[in-house]
Amino acid sequence: MAPTPDPATMIARARAGDRRALAKLITLVENRRAGHVAALSQLYQDGGHAWTTGLTGAPGAGKSTLTDRLIGTLRSRGPEVAVLAVDPSSPFTGGAILGDRVRMADHIADRGVYIRSMASRGQLGGISEATPRALVVIEGAGFGEIILETVGVGQAEIGVVGSADTTVVVVTPGWGDSVQAAKAGLLEIGDLFVVNKADRPGVNDTVRNLKQMLELGGHGEWWPPVVPTVGTSGEGIDELQKAIDDHRAYLESSGALAVRRRDHATRLLNDAVEAELRRKWALARDQSAWDGLEADVVARRLDPWTAASHLVGPSAAQ
Amino acid sequence: MAPTPDPATMIARARAGDRRALAKLITLVENRRAGHVAALSQLYQDGGHAWTTGLTGAPGAGKSTLTDRLIGTLRSRGPEVAVLAVDPSSPFTGGAILGDRVRMADHIADRGVYIRSMASRGQLGGISEATPRALVVIEGAGFGEIILETVGVGQAEIGVVGSADTTVVVVTPGWGDSVQAAKAGLLEIGDLFVVNKADRPGVNDTVRNLKQMLELGGHGEWWPPVVPTVGTSGEGIDELQKAIDDHRAYLESSGALAVRRRDHATRLLNDAVEAELRRKWALARDQSAWDGLEADVVARRLDPWTAASHLVGPSAAQ
Repeated sequence: MAPTPDPATMIARARAGDRRALAKLITLVENRRAGHVAALSQLYQDGGHAWTTGLTGAPGAGKSTLTDRLIGTLRSRGPEVAVLAVDPSSPFTGGAILGDRVRMADHIADRGVYIRSMASRGQLGGISEATPRALVVIEGAGFGEIILETVGVGQAEIGVVGSADTTVVVVTPGWGDSVQAAKAGLLEIGDLFVVNKADRPGVNDTVRNLKQMLELGGHGEWWPPVVPTVGTSGEGIDELQKAIDDHRAYLESSGALAVRRRDHATRLLNDAVEAELRRKWALARDQSAWDGLEADVVARRLDPWTAASHLVGPSAAQ
Repeated sequence: MAPTPDPATMIARARAGDRRALAKLITLVENRRAGHVAALSQLYQDGGHAWTTGLTGAPGAGKSTLTDRLIGTLRSRGPEVAVLAVDPSSPFTGGAILGDRVRMADHIADRGVYIRSMASRGQLGGISEATPRALVVIEGAGFGEIILETVGVGQAEIGVVGSADTTVVVVTPGWGDSVQAAKAGLLEIGDLFVVNKADRPGVNDTVRNLKQMLELGGHGEWWPPVVPTVGTSGEGIDELQKAIDDHRAYLESSGALAVRRRDHATRLLNDAVEAELRRKWALARDQSAWDGLEADVVARRLDPWTAASHLVGPSAAQ
């Protein structure tokens, strides 16, 4: 096997369109391998030029099909498109999930499209802890458009969507009415809403209910539009793309984009600090003290919070 | 306003059945107010005697109705029942979510039932970071049965369910087939599966598909049963309760319960250590250094990971 080239070389190759180099870079930062901070440092400083559209919604809402359609629309305008699809990883579903990705095979011959799946089920750090770093790589590699597709009902997925410039929440008439979307906490994260599978009964009710709920919740200068689509036929995709464009124009002209990206940078910094604290502490920790206190916690001789303050060291206030 | 009594007094009152004292204790630990570690310490050491059943599934699967039914079944046997319902908090849904809870008002006159909602949308620390602490309070207060109800499609909710002894995954025929449950990552966390709203068409397909998927995924000694229910009529609730009882008997007789609870204790300790690290670091951090580096990250003069290593201090390896 040839030796892995250094990160600077891989970055240069990825920018020149070498997809294998790009894939290797993502794996490098995903797994925090040697050299990943140096690579991220360069890629991050050169980033900030892509538009990231987040697509989220319950399983079965048709996000992959919509992504497929949006790739087509965006590519017809010129810029290279990258898709980062964050899937729950599961021993049960390797096949099923691959099935979705296969649909995107329409674009496999298009050198201007790059599609990457990431598993969302992590150990420590939880879901998609690596997703923001992967986005930095993709953006730093020069893609103009990024689609971030996540299964979204949980808080963690909502966190991932926080990396997007425009967040599209996808519901279906069959999935449930707007109250269900509200219960899932999706209403306040959407910059725009798609009612997909709009050839099914109940679409008008869902659109109307969503609009009513959005009205009740109040809104700022931007009023989130609700767009019916049929992903499988392509109906409504132009309207969806126009709504994304409108949102982009609004963010850029109002100054809201700068605020959003500042918040995003601050969040990345906070996350990086937490990871660094964990890492440093793990290197320094006294394993035998840990084992003893853990045994006490398991036996309920001691509670986890008191044990933690013993392990981390004296603390100022309780 | 009367002064708040000390934690030991509140614990004694909560154990004597004073629901206001219990509610105050939960609020105390939820918000990490003064004295919360002392309270948790006592409550944790006295805990470990409740059975916690986690109920999770997509919004609209009918979890609240099932919870309501299970309260009835459990109460008919004697032990006090506490319900901790973790809801996404949202400016849009105060009313809708309260609506669900109101259904449980059947049990409001029953002094042996305690129902508490918690908001899942947190700041730092994310969803339901306080949920495990609230469970320690409820368990330490002497409830024999706890139902932990969460909206579950995301990893974070799955984490919450990790606090349960028996995890029940609720799907519906209308919600989508078993592939959708698999995509949501729910298959491997369920100790048993409920196909609720079983008076709707498609229930047999959903039951069969779930069973097939579970077979494909492999299983240990415990084979997760799939139980059709109709929450609104009570059909299948006895079978559901029997399946929960069977699972409890399996865990207790096989030794698997000890493993599960040891893992849970270790997770609590890990989480407590992380919270303590964050807290200590926040107290000690140099705000002006933070502000300067944050500005550099926002302006992309510096990447967040290098900034974090400057902020946290020298590190051993990159």
